[in-house]
Amino acid sequence: MRDHAPSPTPKNMENITPKILKGFRDFLPKQMAIRQRVLGIVKNVFESYGFDPIETPALEYAETLLGKYGKEADKLIYRFKDQGGRDIALRYDLTVPLARVIAQYPDIPKPFKRYQIQKVWRADKPQKGRYREFTQCDVDIVGSSSPLADAEIVAVIYDVLREIGFKKFIIRINSRQVLFSLMKKAGVPKEKILDAIRIIDKLNRFPLEEVKKELIEQNIKLEVVGKIFQLIEKAKPDPFLQKIASMVKELGVKEDFFKFDPILARGLDYYTGPIYETAIEEAQIGSITGGGRFDKLIGMFIGKDIPACGTTIGIDRIVDVIEELNLWPKVSSTVSQVLITLFDQSFLDKAMEISQILRSENINNEVYLNSGDNLRRQLKYADKKGISFAIIFGPKELQKNTVILKILRTRIQKEIQKSDFIKEFKNKK
Amino acid sequence: MRDHAPSPTPKNMENITPKILKGFRDFLPKQMAIRQRVLGIVKNVFESYGFDPIETPALEYAETLLGKYGKEADKLIYRFKDQGGRDIALRYDLTVPLARVIAQYPDIPKPFKRYQIQKVWRADKPQKGRYREFTQCDVDIVGSSSPLADAEIVAVIYDVLREIGFKKFIIRINSRQVLFSLMKKAGVPKEKILDAIRIIDKLNRFPLEEVKKELIEQNIKLEVVGKIFQLIEKAKPDPFLQKIASMVKELGVKEDFFKFDPILARGLDYYTGPIYETAIEEAQIGSITGGGRFDKLIGMFIGKDIPACGTTIGIDRIVDVIEELNLWPKVSSTVSQVLITLFDQSFLDKAMEISQILRSENINNEVYLNSGDNLRRQLKYADKKGISFAIIFGPKELQKNTVILKILRTRIQKEIQKSDFIKEFKNKK
Repeated sequence: MRDHAPSPTPKNMENITPKILKGFRDFLPKQMAIRQRVLGIVKNVFESYGFDPIETPALEYAETLLGKYGKEADKLIYRFKDQGGRDIALRYDLTVPLARVIAQYPDIPKPFKRYQIQKVWRADKPQKGRYREFTQCDVDIVGSSSPLADAEIVAVIYDVLREIGFKKFIIRINSRQVLFSLMKKAGVPKEKILDAIRIIDKLNRFPLEEVKKELIEQNIKLEVVGKIFQLIEKAKPDPFLQKIASMVKELGVKEDFFKFDPILARGLDYYTGPIYETAIEEAQIGSITGGGRFDKLIGMFIGKDIPACGTTIGIDRIVDVIEELNLWPKVSSTVSQVLITLFDQSFLDKAMEISQILRSENINNEVYLNSGDNLRRQLKYADKKGISFAIIFGPKELQKNTVILKILRTRIQKEIQKSDFIKEFKNKK
Repeated sequence: MRDHAPSPTPKNMENITPKILKGFRDFLPKQMAIRQRVLGIVKNVFESYGFDPIETPALEYAETLLGKYGKEADKLIYRFKDQGGRDIALRYDLTVPLARVIAQYPDIPKPFKRYQIQKVWRADKPQKGRYREFTQCDVDIVGSSSPLADAEIVAVIYDVLREIGFKKFIIRINSRQVLFSLMKKAGVPKEKILDAIRIIDKLNRFPLEEVKKELIEQNIKLEVVGKIFQLIEKAKPDPFLQKIASMVKELGVKEDFFKFDPILARGLDYYTGPIYETAIEEAQIGSITGGGRFDKLIGMFIGKDIPACGTTIGIDRIVDVIEELNLWPKVSSTVSQVLITLFDQSFLDKAMEISQILRSENINNEVYLNSGDNLRRQLKYADKKGISFAIIFGPKELQKNTVILKILRTRIQKEIQKSDFIKEFKNKK
């Protein structure tokens, strides 16, 4: 086959070093296989509860995003001016865009159960399980203040994580309102309550003494700090949380997987009621879900509050844990199930014909593309990619109207009639 | 049920007008249903030919993207400085990131058949079928200079568009090398050839006289312009294109759908060989696929050329055409198939139980969330959302262990034993 000779790269062109930004990642086929399987599970569970998909733009007016998450988070927003001088910013989460959508399209029937699976960007310090670009899978219920809404969110989390195959995880629940009144009772000044809650949230990752120190650095008095921890010791779920807990049970969530946790605080400013978070006990990776009620966020756009609650499921950390625990050892690294090898260029028509037949039977396959390469090299390509089967045929087989089906893992091969090979192949699978 | 009373929005907070950037779009459930179905078809066809998925970051170093597309395109790249002062840019297409990936991971087995479905951003003038954020579905083959690679790309386009249900479209093919030598022969100075090709590309959208005028404005002499069009009249496919054409036929592409077009030029600088583009004849929306060979692009990163070819399939325009031609009238606007209504709060446990049973049978459903609302309001919610069935039960039905299954479109309803309702429901579907 006469190949199209590529002309050389112009001499005056300097090479650009191929590199990627810190905290950003490429996903190659093997990782994509795991990611796509996780996303498939997430999507199925979301839809089984009647959540409908939406998508919003990566770029928003900066004013839409700023002032919703808290002052520390605002600094992490990627923000710039576009070609028209507009002050714009990259999506920081999927909750604020949802609030904007609800405000912008008042005709959306409510309660609105929506899911949204998109990337978000945060100029955070990259570390284990923390990326500058990551995928959020959000489910939210807008327009219901029933505890059943919160309970469904918890049940969705449970179903997703069980379906993925996690054996041990804890969905912790607390209430921002319990925390607010606790802080007030302890004597924290009103304007410092949100800061104090944000610091308390670190208790799951940092030692008690460090958290106490940070509270004192915020000019919260020593005796007030002492009182906070005394009150936390004695904290109990309020009646609303109790209702959620009983409904969660009704929805099939096993007791070992769900617990009240008075120190759970969540970092973001917009939560107003119950908050929920999940950790995988077997892995040191931080929370893999986070959510709660945000009954006032939509009101920031339309001046009238609409109750809402929901959660994010962080699939990047979930994928990290699946890889760490080797939970899915059998995920294939390629979609091709069969490589159709080429004896030489004159066999291309036959190869294309076989490829078409397999394709019409929904068997993903490929014809080896570079007809100059010998069989050994072709099979090496299949092995490297992780393809399971090879179909081999030369002049002899062509004459007998047969092909050789080779199982690449075991190197066992069998000559079969061409008319039988779909059947044979399906048996082997 | 005692609801959690949301506190009012703070008085000192000014409302932010909910608005979206020009050229950007929100996708609500009805549109998402069509988009997801198109993406499902695209993905299946890609995988049937053995293309593996990858994903790359939304943000790249600016130098990775600049200077690859041409000087006009460079101006449309969203480019800014991040918090660390890095010169970064949003993805403009999926081809340059692929070239960067190939250069960065030399161990990827070749030929590498990859697909990539991600959003891209261009600060272009928004108009019909042209958005500032849109989704590209790319398939490319890296490491093969065989015409079979080009032919497979064309066959993939054909299979996707046929599977979607388009009855009439034309995949046009030409060669940049044919164009280059034609321009040279016509007497276009070497440094103006790429500009001339970019102008010639407009022939499909603008009148001949306008295109001629633009060529003359580029200081191309009148007699040279005349010669260009004389030579175009007589142009024939070169031997490489002829090989592609015969393989394309072998791969099942019907003759009416594929044609040589000597004025096809494509706008981007990186194409070096065959180029391909598709238009839907029934719709005025510009090209819905665009691609070709780019045998020198990877060389810009590693100094050594690796042959490659591929196409983008523009699903935003495809979705626009599906909507314009009302090609899929039956796509549901919601994933929920059943609404389980609530007589009052005391029926919630039973409703949750029914919901769980349906879910375990893979029937997407939802329990009505606001127990205060009457049945009429609940059914109105189901109608607005486009849910097909409602399950209704009150004290009478509870006593008899029955439920009422109502088909919402026809308003026909039937009382059935609870033990039979899954069966009944499956019959109705």
